[in-house]
Order: sequence, then C-alpha cells, then structure tokens
Amino acid sequence: MAGGVSDQRALQYEQTLMYGRYTQELGVYAKEEAARLKETTQRRSISERSRALDLLEYDKGRCAKCRICTVRCQKFLISRVGEDWIFLILLGLFMALVSWVVDFCIAICLQAQKWMYGGLDSNVFLQYLAWVTYPVVLITFSAGFTQILAPQAVGSGIPEMKTILRGVVLKEYLTFKTFVAKVIGLTCALGSGMPLGKEGPFVHIASLCAALLSKFMSLFGGIYENESRNIEMLAAACAVGVGCCFAAPIGGVLFSIEVTSTFFAVRNYWRGFFAATFSAFIFRVLAVWNRDEETITALFKTRFRLDFPFDLQELPAFAVIGIASGFGGALFVYLNRLIVQFIRKQKAINRFLMKKRLLYPALVTLLISTLTFPPGFGQFMAGKLTQKESLVTLLDNRTWAKQGIAEEFDYIGHSQAWKHPQVNVFVTLVLFIVMKFWMSALATTIPVPCGAFMPVFVIGAAFGRLVGESMAAWFPDGIHTDGIIYPIVPGGYAVVGAAALSGAVTHTVSTAVIVFELTGQISHILPVMIAVILANAVAQSLQPSLYDSIIRIKKLPYLPELGWGHHEKYNIRVEDIMVRDVRYITLNCTYRDLHNVLLTGHLKTLALVESAASMILLGSIERAQLQSLLSQQLGRPRRLEYIRERTVAEKKRLSMVSDIESEPGSQRVSQEVRFQISTEESSISPTRTAPQKPLKPALKKTSVVERPIEMPTGTHDNSAIGLKNLFCTNPDTEGMEEPPPSLKIFFGDDGDVEDDMTLREIAEWEEQQLDEQVNFNNCKIDPAPFQLVERTSLHKTHTIFSLLGLDHAYVTSIGRLIGVVSLKELRKAIEGSVTVKGVKVRPPLASFRDSGTSSSENEATELHKLWDRHKSLSLPREPTPPDSDEKCQ
Amino acid sequence: MAGGVSDQRALQYEQTLMYGRYTQELGVYAKEEAARLKETTQRRSISERSRALDLLEYDKGRCAKCRICTVRCQKFLISRVGEDWIFLILLGLFMALVSWVVDFCIAICLQAQKWMYGGLDSNVFLQYLAWVTYPVVLITFSAGFTQILAPQAVGSGIPEMKTILRGVVLKEYLTFKTFVAKVIGLTCALGSGMPLGKEGPFVHIASLCAALLSKFMSLFGGIYENESRNIEMLAAACAVGVGCCFAAPIGGVLFSIEVTSTFFAVRNYWRGFFAATFSAFIFRVLAVWNRDEETITALFKTRFRLDFPFDLQELPAFAVIGIASGFGGALFVYLNRLIVQFIRKQKAINRFLMKKRLLYPALVTLLISTLTFPPGFGQFMAGKLTQKESLVTLLDNRTWAKQGIAEEFDYIGHSQAWKHPQVNVFVTLVLFIVMKFWMSALATTIPVPCGAFMPVFVIGAAFGRLVGESMAAWFPDGIHTDGIIYPIVPGGYAVVGAAALSGAVTHTVSTAVIVFELTGQISHILPVMIAVILANAVAQSLQPSLYDSIIRIKKLPYLPELGWGHHEKYNIRVEDIMVRDVRYITLNCTYRDLHNVLLTGHLKTLALVESAASMILLGSIERAQLQSLLSQQLGRPRRLEYIRERTVAEKKRLSMVSDIESEPGSQRVSQEVRFQISTEESSISPTRTAPQKPLKPALKKTSVVERPIEMPTGTHDNSAIGLKNLFCTNPDTEGMEEPPPSLKIFFGDDGDVEDDMTLREIAEWEEQQLDEQVNFNNCKIDPAPFQLVERTSLHKTHTIFSLLGLDHAYVTSIGRLIGVVSLKELRKAIEGSVTVKGVKVRPPLASFRDSGTSSSENEATELHKLWDRHKSLSLPREPTPPDSDEKCQ
Repeated sequence: MAGGVSDQRALQYEQTLMYGRYTQELGVYAKEEAARLKETTQRRSISERSRALDLLEYDKGRCAKCRICTVRCQKFLISRVGEDWIFLILLGLFMALVSWVVDFCIAICLQAQKWMYGGLDSNVFLQYLAWVTYPVVLITFSAGFTQILAPQAVGSGIPEMKTILRGVVLKEYLTFKTFVAKVIGLTCALGSGMPLGKEGPFVHIASLCAALLSKFMSLFGGIYENESRNIEMLAAACAVGVGCCFAAPIGGVLFSIEVTSTFFAVRNYWRGFFAATFSAFIFRVLAVWNRDEETITALFKTRFRLDFPFDLQELPAFAVIGIASGFGGALFVYLNRLIVQFIRKQKAINRFLMKKRLLYPALVTLLISTLTFPPGFGQFMAGKLTQKESLVTLLDNRTWAKQGIAEEFDYIGHSQAWKHPQVNVFVTLVLFIVMKFWMSALATTIPVPCGAFMPVFVIGAAFGRLVGESMAAWFPDGIHTDGIIYPIVPGGYAVVGAAALSGAVTHTVSTAVIVFELTGQISHILPVMIAVILANAVAQSLQPSLYDSIIRIKKLPYLPELGWGHHEKYNIRVEDIMVRDVRYITLNCTYRDLHNVLLTGHLKTLALVESAASMILLGSIERAQLQSLLSQQLGRPRRLEYIRERTVAEKKRLSMVSDIESEPGSQRVSQEVRFQISTEESSISPTRTAPQKPLKPALKKTSVVERPIEMPTGTHDNSAIGLKNLFCTNPDTEGMEEPPPSLKIFFGDDGDVEDDMTLREIAEWEEQQLDEQVNFNNCKIDPAPFQLVERTSLHKTHTIFSLLGLDHAYVTSIGRLIGVVSLKELRKAIEGSVTVKGVKVRPPLASFRDSGTSSSENEATELHKLWDRHKSLSLPREPTPPDSDEKCQ
Repeated sequence: MAGGVSDQRALQYEQTLMYGRYTQELGVYAKEEAARLKETTQRRSISERSRALDLLEYDKGRCAKCRICTVRCQKFLISRVGEDWIFLILLGLFMALVSWVVDFCIAICLQAQKWMYGGLDSNVFLQYLAWVTYPVVLITFSAGFTQILAPQAVGSGIPEMKTILRGVVLKEYLTFKTFVAKVIGLTCALGSGMPLGKEGPFVHIASLCAALLSKFMSLFGGIYENESRNIEMLAAACAVGVGCCFAAPIGGVLFSIEVTSTFFAVRNYWRGFFAATFSAFIFRVLAVWNRDEETITALFKTRFRLDFPFDLQELPAFAVIGIASGFGGALFVYLNRLIVQFIRKQKAINRFLMKKRLLYPALVTLLISTLTFPPGFGQFMAGKLTQKESLVTLLDNRTWAKQGIAEEFDYIGHSQAWKHPQVNVFVTLVLFIVMKFWMSALATTIPVPCGAFMPVFVIGAAFGRLVGESMAAWFPDGIHTDGIIYPIVPGGYAVVGAAALSGAVTHTVSTAVIVFELTGQISHILPVMIAVILANAVAQSLQPSLYDSIIRIKKLPYLPELGWGHHEKYNIRVEDIMVRDVRYITLNCTYRDLHNVLLTGHLKTLALVESAASMILLGSIERAQLQSLLSQQLGRPRRLEYIRERTVAEKKRLSMVSDIESEPGSQRVSQEVRFQISTEESSISPTRTAPQKPLKPALKKTSVVERPIEMPTGTHDNSAIGLKNLFCTNPDTEGMEEPPPSLKIFFGDDGDVEDDMTLREIAEWEEQQLDEQVNFNNCKIDPAPFQLVERTSLHKTHTIFSLLGLDHAYVTSIGRLIGVVSLKELRKAIEGSVTVKGVKVRPPLASFRDSGTSSSENEATELHKLWDRHKSLSLPREPTPPDSDEKCQ
C-alpha cells in the first residue's frame, strides 16, 4: 500500500496543511483508490481460495483424508476469524500496545529534556538553549515528517472521523501511511512537552487500525468486505481510541458516541464496550508488567476521603465552576478559530509561512517554550512540570493554601513547583490558567498530529483548583457546622473543573465519566454532573464544539445539529429549500439525451421518470451505470459486431485504415484524457496523475440496492465521443464530427474482427447509435430512492438525513418528481435559520408562505392534475421542454 | 381524567392480569382516548388564549398599558414554560419526591413488621403468624388495589415502555389512574419484604409522570402537543426513573437507553442526563434534610481500599463469576417464563386462581415468607434481613471467613445474620443464593407492580461474595507475593457478581455503571466490565432478556433484535416475506369501491395507486380520511343540499316524512352502532361501551405528513349505509336497499332546510352517490410512504423499521406496488430464522432462490414491462381483477 509516490501527493495536498480546505479531488481520488483496493483484495482472496481447492483436488491421490481434514480446519478457523469478537480483541490488543509504546516513548523524550536541562544548570543560557531547542527540533521534525508522509495525519482526527461515520468516504484518511505518520508525529509532538493532547489522534489511530485490520482480515474471508460492517467497526474503534488513551472504557464509549455520532444503534453498543474494555485492560496490564504499577488502578488516582466527599453547601461553588467553564470553553473554541482564520487571512504571513512550511511550528514552539522556561517566566506558572505531572499535582487531595498563607504548603513531590518564594499560590494558578489557555489554543493550530482534550482538561483542573483553594482559604474549617470538622478538599474542585471545561469545549457530558475513570473515584458524581451540564448549557448556546468548529474550518461535508429544544418552532419546509430544477432521464429517452444529461450535471445519481410530461418518479440510477450504458452502446465490441455484420452483408468493401489506433492512442492517454478505467491489478498505480475529474465527492450509503455496482470495464473499450464529452470539463460538441485520433483509448485488442472503420465512419456510426432509445435492461436501478414531500418539515428532514446518512432525497408530490434536496441545501437552511449566536433568522422563502392557511392545497391541486391527466392522457402540463437538458452546466 | 368507569374497564382488561395478552381493543381504545384528549386540551388552550385577548381589548379604556404589560409577561412566562429544561426539572423534582416518599413508606412498613416480630418473641407461633400475615395482607391488598384501579400497573413496566417508545400507542398505560395504582401498589408490595424490586416500576412511574406533566403543561402552550417531542420526553423519563431509584444518573441514562431503545438520537442525550442528575440530586438531598445522611453520598457506600483494589491474578476468578452469572441469568429468565407458562397451561389451577383472583399472590407470599421465617429455615439464609440490609452486608469490605473458619467473623451490625452457630458461612450463602433465586423468579410473577432488578442484584452480590469468601479462604494472605500483604476483598467480588448477574438478566452493560454509582467506588472497574461483558455474551446466546421475555409472554407488538454479529449472513429478502395481496384504492375509483375496500381490510392506511393496471404507487391514505370522505359523500349536509336543489327545481312536491329521524335514532345508538364520532368536549365519556371495533391497533409515526389529521366530525352527520357497513363487524350488503331507521345518527340538527326524504329515497340517493367517482381533493394523502424493494435484505429492512419506527412499508418495483411488509411479517421472518438457541433456520421461500444468480433480473423485467406499457398503454399486465376488492376479509 505504501507506494513511492508520496512526494507528488504531498504537493497535491498542499491545501490540507494548516487546516486546509477539503477539496473534491480528494474525495474522488479516495473513492477510486478504495474501489481499486477492494477489487484487488477481492480478487486476491478469491484466487487464494481457489488455489486451496486446487490443492485439494491434486493431492487426492495421496493422503486425501488428511488433506480434507486440514482444509476443513482451515475453513473453520477462517469462519472463526470472521467473528466480530476476534476482530475486536485484535483491535483492542493492538491499540493498547500502540498506546503504551507511544506513552513510553513520550516519557523517554520528556525525561531526556529534563536530563539535559538538569545537567546544564551551571549556565542559564545553555540551559535555555537546551530547553528551547529540544521541543523546536521535535515539533519541526513531527511537522515535516507528517507533511511529507501523509498530510492527512495533521490535527485531531475526530472531525474527520465524524465525517467518515456520517457516511462520507475520506479513504485517504485511513491508509497505512497516515497511520505511520500519525503515530510517529504524535510521539514527537507530545515528546516536546508542548500543551498538546493524545486523545483525538488516538481516535484517529484506532480507526486507522480498524480499517487496516479489516483490510488484512478480508484476506481470510468475505465478511470484512461489507461496508456497513466496516462503519460499525470504525465506531467501535473510536471508543477503543479513547478507552486505551485514558484506560477509561465506559467514558471512551460514551465520549466517542457523543463526539462522532448523531444517531446510535444500541445494537453496536457492546462492540465498543468489549473492545474498549479489553484495550484498557491490556494497557494497564502492560504498566503492571513493566513494574510501573503494582496492580491495575486508575491513571491519575486520587485519594479523597470517602465518608464525606463534599458538603451540600459547597454545591453553589461547583455550579459557579460549571458556568465559568462554559464561558471558558466557548472562548477557547473561539480563540482557536480566530488564530486559524487570522493566519489564513494575513496574505503576507501566509505566503511566507507556506514557503517555509516548517517555520510556523518552529516559531510557535519557540514562543511557548521560551515562556515556560523554568528559571524565567516559567517559575511563576509551574513551567517545569510536564502535563501529566501538573495534572497529578492539581488532583492532590491536600490543601495547598491554608488560611491564605503559602507557608503550610506541603513540599512533597512535584507540588513544590507550584510554590514560589515571593508569589502566592493563587497568583501562580491564575498565571498558569491564563498562559496555558492561549498557549493551548495556539499550540493546537500547529500542523502536527495533536489533540486539545488533555490541555483543556489540565486548564480546567487548574481552574477548579483555584476555586477550591479559594474556598479552603475562605472556610478553613469547612462549612459543616455540627460536630466533626470536614475541611474542604480542593482536589475535588479540580476534578469538577477538569470535567466541566473539557465538557464545554467538546460539548459532551461523558467527560464526567472519563474523569471518574481517570481518577478512580466517583464520590464527586453529583457536583461533576451538575458542573458539566451547566458548562454544556452555556457553551452550546455560544459556540459550536471544537470538533464542529474544525469541521467548518476545514470545510468538510457535514450536517449541523439543530438547536437545543426549539426545533419544533422552525417554520421551514422542504418546499422552501428544495432545488426545483432536477436533472432527470425519462424511460423513453435516447442515448443522446442520456449523453447530454451526463454532460451537464455532476450528481452521483440521476432520477428516472416515466416521461417528461408525467414526471412520475420510477427510481434513481447511478451515474456510473449510465456511463457504462453509454460506453456499452458506443463501445468497441458493439462496433466490432457492427463491422462483422457489415462485412457479412457486403463482402466487397475493403478495410482502409486499420492500424490507425493501435499505437498513437495509448501514448497520448496521459496527456489529454483525464479519465481512465483501470483494469490493472497492481496495488500501485504509477500512471495516476492529479485527479481533477468533475465527479462529485463520494457520499456513500445512498442506494437501497445493496450490492456494489460493478462497472463493466475491461471487457470493452470506450469510444471517442462518449469519453470526450463525458469526461472533459469543456465539451466541444462542434468537433463531434471529426474526433482527433488521440482520444481513442483501449486496453486490450483481443477482437478477432479487424477494426477497419475510419474516424468519420466511426463518428457517423456513433451518431446513429446515439439516436437509439436507451435499453435499461442491464442497468441497476434503485427503485425506491428516498422521497420527501413538499410539506415535510426541516426538523423531520434533518432527522431522516442523519438517521439514514442520506446524501440527497427526491421531493415528490403524488408520485411526481418536483424537486431534490441534498445535504448542501439542508445545511444552508439550518445555518440560515440558526446562527452561531443562537438567533434564528427566517429564511427568505418561508416568509412568503402564510403559515395560517397551510392546508393541503398543494397536494390537492397536484392530485387534481394527475386525475385530469388520467382521464385525458394527452396534454403535457408543465412546459419543461426536453431540450432543457441540453444546456451545459 | 380519572373517570368513574373503572369497574367496567377492570373487567374488560381481565386478560392483562397475570401477564395477560395484549389485545387489539386496547390499542383502539387507547388511540381514541388520546385523540379525544388531545382535541379537548387543544380547544381548551385556544379558548383560554382567545379569552386573554378579549380581556385585553375590553379593558383598553382603563390602564391599557398595564394590561398589555401583564399579558406580555404572561406570554413570556408561557413561552418559558414551553422550554425543555423547565419540564425536565419539574419531572426530576417530582420523581425524586415520589421516590423518596415511596422509600420512606417502605422503610416504615418494614420497620413495622420487624417491630411486630420482635415484640412477640415469647411465642414462636404468634411470631410466625405475625411474620407471615403481614406480607400476605400487604401483597393481597396491593394485588387487589391494582386490579381494581388499573390492571395496567401490574409488573415491571419496562416492557411496555419499550413498546411505547417503539412507536406503539398504549395510552391506557399512561393515565393518572395507572399512576396511582402503580405507586400505591408498589409501596405495599415492597413493604411486604418480598424479593421484589423498585427499578422497573419506577421507569413506568417516571413515564407516567412525564405523560401527565406534559398533558398538564399543554394547558399553557402548544409545544406539548407535539407527538415526537412527547416520545423524546418519555425516553428522558425512563432515565429519570432509574436515576432517582438508585441515585445513579449516568447509569440510569445508559440503562434506560439499553433497555428501551433500538436506535438512539445523541441529540436527546442531554435531556436524560439533565433530568436524571437533577432527580438523583434532589433524591439524595431529601435524605440529607431528613438527617438520614450527613451529606450526599452513594446509596450503598463501600469502603474498599483504593491503593490496591485487586490483584491481577484474581482476574480469572472475576471472569468465572461473569460466565457463571451469564448462565444464571439465562436460567432466571427461563425459570420466570416457565412459571408463567405453567400456571397458564394448568387449566384447573388457572380457573381456580382466576376465580379467586387474590389467592395466587397470597399463596406465593405465604410460601416465601414461611421459608424465610427467621427461627425456622430463615436462620440458614439470613432470612431476617431486608433486601437493603442484605445488600449492605454483602458489600461489606471485611472478610467473613478467614481461613475457612467462621470464628473470625466480625459481629457488627447486620452481618451477624449471616452467622449461624452450627453452619458454615459458605452454606448460608449457598442456601441464600439457591432459595432467593427461585423465590425471586416466583415472586416476580405475582400480579403486583414489581421489578426483578433488585432481587437479581442481591443474588448476584451473594454469589460474588461466595466466590470472594472462597478466594479469601484459599489465599488467606492474598496472592501478591513480593513485599506487602494485600488480603483479598470479598466485597469487591460481591460488586462484580451483582453487576454481572443483573447485566445477564437484563442484557445490559450499563449495570456496571449503576454498580459504581450505587457503591460510590469505581476501583473495580476492569473486573466489573470483564464480568459483565462475559455474562452478557453467555446470557444473550441462551435466552432473551427478561424484558423481551415478558414482551413475548404478554404478546406486545415488538420487533426482535437481530442476532449478534452474524446478521450479514441472512439470506432473506423482502420478496420472501412480503404480503402480495395488498389492499389498494385507485385514483379513479368510485365511492362504492372505497366502501368495499374499507369493509374488507383493517389496515390503518391504504395504498393509493394510479390504476389497477399500472399499479403505480402514488401515496397512502389513512383509513380515517377515507371514512370521512365516504361520510361526507353520504352525509346529511350533502343530502340537505340535494334536497334544497330538488325543492328549488320542483316546488310542487311536499315534504312527506320529516320527523322520522329526530328521535328514535339517537336512542338506539348505544345498542347497535358501535362507532361514534364524538363531538362532546367533556373529558369523561359516559356512553363509551366496550370498544370492539375492527380497527387496527394504533401504530403511530408512520406518516411523513406531520400535522394530525382532523376528522371532519361534528359539522355533518353520518348516514345509514356508510356507518352500518363500515363499522359493524358483520356487514350485510344485501340489506343495503332498506336500511332500518335505527341506524341513523346525527348530533346536531341545525339545518335550515327540512330533511323530508323517506328511507327508501335516502337509500336510493345513497346508491346513486356511491357510484360517483371519488374526489380526493380534500383528502390528506401521504405522498411518500416508506418504500422497499423486493431485493432489500432482512437486515436492512430491520434497520429501517427500527430506525424510523415503521409499522409497514410498501414494496415497489419501479414505481409499481407489488406488496407490503408489516411489522408482523418482519417479526415472523426474524423469529423463523433466529431461534432462541441461536440456530438459524432458512425460511422456506429463501431456498427457492438461487443466491448465485441474484442479479437484477426481476427489476429489469419489470422495467421492460413498464417500458412496453409506455409505448402501448392498452394491455393490463397483471390479471388482478378489480373485483378482487369486493371479497370480504
């Protein structure tokens, strides 16, 4: 899979660097590659299976029984391999190993930095150099390595996974190269000590693992070739990613559901739990085996008292943390987007940074590491602690500042770093929060594999600690009055703050569960839940989640969520947003019509109606099917047959120009023809040039017919007009009479009849063929494409689109096709009505409709028309001239 | 809402006692009632609103500004009331109060029993009488009270909620009477000390609360009239039910999702969390205010050590608990079903028990309480402990049997009950497990409101404790060898066992989360997760879940789940299971055809096709719409108009029989006509007799058109033939000529023209009207009913049905209607192919199809036909004679 064409492709994906835009070429390329890979593996597995059978037959002479037994065992094993739990166990095991190895490497990197920094304590300047150079080198390497190998590995990966699970094919995001780039890039990035996280990338890595594993497993059996199964497995993989990152199986499953899904099949629930549990188990067992831990415990174990975790009267403070975290989370998302947009907008900076691609990461790293230099400003913000150490100290169950005085500070372990001889611990905490806040927002824009969950989590913990320490200073003996004194536990506040802020940034509730699993204590469940819910309420009304924000920045295809609660009030119906000018083909159309329709639109599927007059929707046909119909009609085998017939009829004519298309055509393929139906079986396609086909990005899952449509390629070549007009972006219909010979392509010349037609003859023959009526007999038609009605509400349309992962739906009125709604229209409608600020704007069209008189007038009228038509089937009602199909785009 | 017709209805629902069957009448009745209530509340809210406006206008003279301000404030408040979070807070608050009060009453009941038992310790016989009589009286009261007030309150309620959330309307299950019966019945049942649970009923109670609350809130605004919103709120209510029962918000949400949903909208996730958290919070705060607790902590707090919760080498023991629990859970479900079926089958017993309705509960209670009598057999099974006390002792963090000797037993608190001077603690535990196992399975069949979760939870804890104690006896110094001795904690095993067994019985993974929230410790997360997953794997392959089992016993409409993982292998397609004989109406049919079609079938919606020849599906029409069409055509206003026209035309004719239908008709309504279109606004309908209409049970959510269909009632009456033939179960078409005058009904006589037709004239006029062509203009048509294709796989069909909550779907082939698939066929197909044992049986039809040649032959042929038809629109292809509609049922 890992070819040597990475350099070209890296150039080609320039746009995806630094939150680049999602472009259609990517999708097209991805789809092709996917189809090719699928075909390859299918063929391979078939050939292997047949080889096994051959073996069986040849060796019958000798110990036949033994052979049969072996084959049966093999078959049994293969059928076992097909079971889900084997796959999930393998996935969990592998991901646990990856997670552990990555953690191990990161720890070594961070130790090395500390060792360098510690060894040079004689000279502050040398110390500074060591402190700064190390992360700059690591980040620069990470950025460079990722960009060269697979630019798709940049960033979190959760937005992309959300898009993929939505049904959009972004196959380039699930390749082995991306896996390698992501793992190595992530290790280096986190090893630098920047405020970056591991969670998002691990969701991506786990999905990569699942995709590669199922590709590998499909060598053994056919079960892994099922598309919907693979989607289910990817959903489980996302849970594994979070699970093995934090050793949090339950939180992992819930977080991955909240972050990636819109509708969730409870049927698949167990998959996630099974794989994530196994993965978390192995991940923690590895730590035990490595003698890091005595037994399996939580990652950031806390030791709060169990009998009286918190006072009822502390709850307002927890609520305040929640609300403040909500605002903070929204601010973080806003800041992050602002930085990206600022850098994009500044043309001068942008051009400069683009030229020196690695300068931006280096500069950002330099700035951040300079500010955290421990003898410098870092001394005021616990700069020498790594992210993990900060978190451990923040969750400490001792109080740092009793009665406002820093003297009683416990000088054990890393907590010392928070202590400064001149400065109060409160000042240290405030500085830490403020500095880390913008540093994290800035650092997550570096084009390396990185997440933002962990930095946000740490900032939240620091904020919670700050509130907790303030409370402890305010009530030194606790609030509870009667009897025993229960002092306030600031660590509990840190737990609440961490869950609330990370929940606000990601718009999830399950961070509460993650925090329990991370700390190993659930005693603060109610404060955590209250704070997380409040934080979500505030953040969701202000900003989209971080992942949705990145999706918008990257312009990935997505469907925004409807707002909280008030979706019943939308006064938009399908008729307001649908596109009325639908491309369609009729049942009695000619090949010329087909040809014209294919030329004008880029839709993946086309509607099939009974006639232009009745417009009764009969089904939808995939574009590829129509293309193959056309190429069959104009193809070489048909022409050869025609020639054969002609030669039988009139023996006297001689072949005139026979060798015109044997040599020159294949040479000019790469120059002028941009579409190429490949029949090669090799996994590396050397002739693949920059794909700029006008096909739509591959949105899957739309067809009700399940079997993949095999384009009848390879058995026939494609003729001049078909190809020229179908696949060139600028069709030149005037030149149809004399197509240049260079446009002829073919792959095999196995005909027994000599192709002796001149170009003019071919053109004439093709013209003749184009006037024939289309025979849809061998064409796969989806007879039940999803249909909506004019009066279907936006809310219902949204539900149906997200439930079924639709790309488009036809709008019909009593069987008549009157419009089409695609994801794009739906997105526009939702965004037009719900702005980021939560203010609803009525779409322009909705105002024309009087909602008071919304009876079934329309339907009745349409039905009436149909009824009339039924009585007298003569007059066409809609003046849609059939030549409206002719217009070019 | 609470009418006084309970006695009649109680008789009518005899079948629902003791796991009665779900009958269609119930559904019909429920639907009607729902429609009536909806109408009533709508009208009321409208009238109130208009009254407010009136007020505004009248008082304009005086302080107009003040008034306007008041109205605006009112409006604002009302709009606020419409917001989800207000509803959820109210729901949570109310449920917390209910839960707390129920718990309080149960505690008082149990204390009273103990007090009686303790006070009579001089005489063992009196003691026994007190011990036995008390629960028998309580259970008998509970059973009697429930049966008299609302038999729907019997049992858990989770199966019914699952059915309701599936989209089936069982409105009788969500009335105020049911609420009262459930709360009081549950309190008495649990107060008796029987091994019964509170969780299932609380899910039902919370849903009842939500339904009643939204009915109440709809007085303020129109938002609560949205059906889909109510379903969403019911889903949240289920979470609240579990949440406030165990003070487990996260576990509650997850458990309710797993138990009630098939597909879950992540959009609604926060609702459940919000309401459940608030409810759990209030529930625990009430305990603090009542001085039961010092602060908010877990319900069954454990105090296991945090630093070394368990050894890695103990994991096999945990896995064993999981697997054994899986078998145990399946056995429990099987046993429970066996008991119900045994009692049903034994005609003699059954007749006897049915006659003396309260005897069965009394007998079962007598048996169980006799066996648990503490001085008797109860001494060997900790009989004197209540369920809660047993659980607290079982989760104790001390080891009961060190080195196999019971001497080191800690005699503190209730743990003493497990100690017996002669018998080992292991024997006590084994006896407890065995006895409680069958007792719980038996007790949950008593017709009182009760759940099985808590008993199973306690049994699981006991089993875990048994394994834990054995391990502690086996390894007295713990397994860990190097350094410090960490003794084994049997309480941890109890936690694992409880989660595993309850997970196995309910087929859920979220019992793990519930157990953490119940105990307040999450340190055993990995053992619990492993055990729960293993238990689920074993139990799911052996038996359905307890709730699914009850659904099958009660014959509720449901859709079984597809098996684990191997659903890709199903070789069944829609064409194998669909019903080919579809009832349809054509666009050009007469009212007579309509009439005949309505007579023959009981489907809720009917397909509308272009013509019998083309069979092109145009949409579906609700039965009610067609009925109203028919009654409009034959109705009094139309006839009066006809009369008016006639009188204008021929002035000479005199009115002959004018008073024939003013009096006698309305008197005989209740005798012969079973259908009645009510226009009364009163909430109590005194004339409602036993509903035995042949309408289908109301499966909702099928129509794409959203607005509720208002039957045009009240403005016109219904005529003789229409009603007689439509709504009597035994239509007599011969008598159409001379309809008896008793069949005439009308509600208002506000016409200005005198109705002077004779019966014969009316009959003739109606005959004439019936031959007219139907005018569908004022008819609401769903133009896009859900369509499938012949080749849609069973897996896909199942997914679509459960995603969209469909009742039926039409099967089309290139626009032509060829069949229909309803929930029933789907269920049959799934059950036919997946038996309980996991063995797949190929359905008989599937074997006829060669899966190898499964190309699109069918489609192509159909298309070809259509194509031919298009060219020559004369020959009808399918010999479906139009008179096939005539045949009666």
